Amino acid sequence: MPALPLPPGSTIGILGGGQLGRMLALAAGRLGFDVAILEPEPNAPASRVAAHTVVGAYDDPTALAELAKLASVVTYEFENVPAAAVEHLTSLGVQVAPGALALAVAQDRVAEKTFLNGAGVPTVAFAAADSAEAAREAVAAMGAPVLMKTRREGYDGKGQRWVEHIADAPAAFEAVGGKPVILEAPADFVRELSIIAARGRDGGIAVYPLAENHHEKGVLRRSFAPAEVSKDTAAQAERIAAQILGALDYVGVIGIELFEMQGGKLLVNEIAPRVHNTGHWTMDGCEVDQFEQHIRAVAGWPLGPTHAHARVEMLNLLGDEASAWAKLAGEPETRIHLYGKHEARPGRKMGHINRLRPL
Amino acid sequence: MPALPLPPGSTIGILGGGQLGRMLALAAGRLGFDVAILEPEPNAPASRVAAHTVVGAYDDPTALAELAKLASVVTYEFENVPAAAVEHLTSLGVQVAPGALALAVAQDRVAEKTFLNGAGVPTVAFAAADSAEAAREAVAAMGAPVLMKTRREGYDGKGQRWVEHIADAPAAFEAVGGKPVILEAPADFVRELSIIAARGRDGGIAVYPLAENHHEKGVLRRSFAPAEVSKDTAAQAERIAAQILGALDYVGVIGIELFEMQGGKLLVNEIAPRVHNTGHWTMDGCEVDQFEQHIRAVAGWPLGPTHAHARVEMLNLLGDEASAWAKLAGEPETRIHLYGKHEARPGRKMGHINRLRPL
Repeated sequence: MPALPLPPGSTIGILGGGQLGRMLALAAGRLGFDVAILEPEPNAPASRVAAHTVVGAYDDPTALAELAKLASVVTYEFENVPAAAVEHLTSLGVQVAPGALALAVAQDRVAEKTFLNGAGVPTVAFAAADSAEAAREAVAAMGAPVLMKTRREGYDGKGQRWVEHIADAPAAFEAVGGKPVILEAPADFVRELSIIAARGRDGGIAVYPLAENHHEKGVLRRSFAPAEVSKDTAAQAERIAAQILGALDYVGVIGIELFEMQGGKLLVNEIAPRVHNTGHWTMDGCEVDQFEQHIRAVAGWPLGPTHAHARVEMLNLLGDEASAWAKLAGEPETRIHLYGKHEARPGRKMGHINRLRPL
Repeated sequence: MPALPLPPGSTIGILGGGQLGRMLALAAGRLGFDVAILEPEPNAPASRVAAHTVVGAYDDPTALAELAKLASVVTYEFENVPAAAVEHLTSLGVQVAPGALALAVAQDRVAEKTFLNGAGVPTVAFAAADSAEAAREAVAAMGAPVLMKTRREGYDGKGQRWVEHIADAPAAFEAVGGKPVILEAPADFVRELSIIAARGRDGGIAVYPLAENHHEKGVLRRSFAPAEVSKDTAAQAERIAAQILGALDYVGVIGIELFEMQGGKLLVNEIAPRVHNTGHWTMDGCEVDQFEQHIRAVAGWPLGPTHAHARVEMLNLLGDEASAWAKLAGEPETRIHLYGKHEARPGRKMGHINRLRPL
């Protein structure tokens, strides 16, 4: 196992070469680290700012061994990392952070909500179903409407649908893939918020101000941060973050999506064991952004400050919206971040902007 | 010639793979550009965060041709780029910024001061001497003491010495290398200041607040920014920057070192046609730092805002001072930047910190 804190000049491995890996690599570079990316696609966004890239599948033992030779510590930019990959890296003497428990919980929506409730963190009511008939029975027990989602995979609104009547449940089960599902009671929320938090190897916790998030077609469109929330709401969110981080014995940055209910109660919608799109505002609104914070945590460094020094509106640039770069670059209040993706497919996250206002 | 403004996804070439090249590459990455480094050493600090590296001498036509194939626009991190390299790249259809005039002026201290005075910018009195005897005559004409410097090369206080008596001039001439020199009248300055400024391809100018600089043994130790200066001093500095940038038809960021004289008059000590160590404070004190500003300028993008949002003390980490990284990383007011250099030779610039206070 590597000596921690990890000295500058060491190499940090990242599973995944997309924009989150790229922004992590840029942050690691600022701190004097080298980065090694493992990613199936050659020439990925993160690879182009990293010292090393291993091109291979995430579960390819040869590729993982190559990564383990390069890197002292490995992290990841997406939660669907195969559990076997983490085990293999660990067996090769590489520390993987966040750890296996966080991944297991984040990969299965039933395990996630079960874990959250067990840690004392409220969520919507839910049930699991492994067959069309079981789905029908569960909807009958919960009452319609319910939101049906595949237990595993699916993101940005994919693999989910509303079941409006009990009788529709079996067809919905087949429509989302005929695989095990979770059924979630509707959350009659006022707003969607999120909190980005970090936990260091020493158990220390750092929490950013809340963001208020707006989705379109299941994809994050805008975040406003710091969100205007009551002291009680902020305290609730910080308590939730601390409970989750502690219960997972977590190391790194986590994104926690919250529903704010009428009356102010917060429910956790989902957790992402990684840097998070709703934390991109920290790149221009905080002294230490979520990417540097994550690198600090996985490297065993002390966590940095999390207070905001500006009010930020973060806007994702989807598909050909990024072609407005010249106009956006000319707006004095706008900081622009582009991911180096060559093909602007519709809805693809090509970059984001942070529009700043004084606090 | 490439279409400007240069679209994201394009490749920007950088001559030089040291820390300035590295921080330029990180800034280019944030904007969605790829970077190609040309540098004689393999595995240089900038190469490890760049998509491409051409390992070769700066004046090697094969290496330059390879760089020209990769990059639409080329810039540099040091002012001693051979003029022939710029000519060769230009002949291959690559735009080099800043241009040949800025380089020529910055490479020869006599040309530099002659240019400055010609542009209406005050400097200390000076004379040129090409021989030991000419040096003696010049000192006799100016009066001792004078500061003798080689006309070309020399940085961080190397290749210079004080001549206290007329009779010492010939020996001093031999001691600094027996090559053409400049003799400078002493500047009885109150403070050393600097101004970091940028000029875009459209002729637009952006100027950062002044920094107050403290050197030790000829090497920058600390900068304080924004420096506490009078409105008149700030206006003088901005006027000087505008005169220099305009007269050079400059594109990019320039560092202008100033002497503040008793009574407030500013003299230009020297100019550096590149991002500058006294501008590192902008990385944490401004929304758009000098590195992104330089990339914006050479890419033909609009320049970004330059106001400070914090008061910064920048401290260079020289030699093994960088080994205090763990302690420094734990200071909440301190942002740490490390350059990924493996060997901490005495006096070598290994990184810097920016300590922040509210404005």
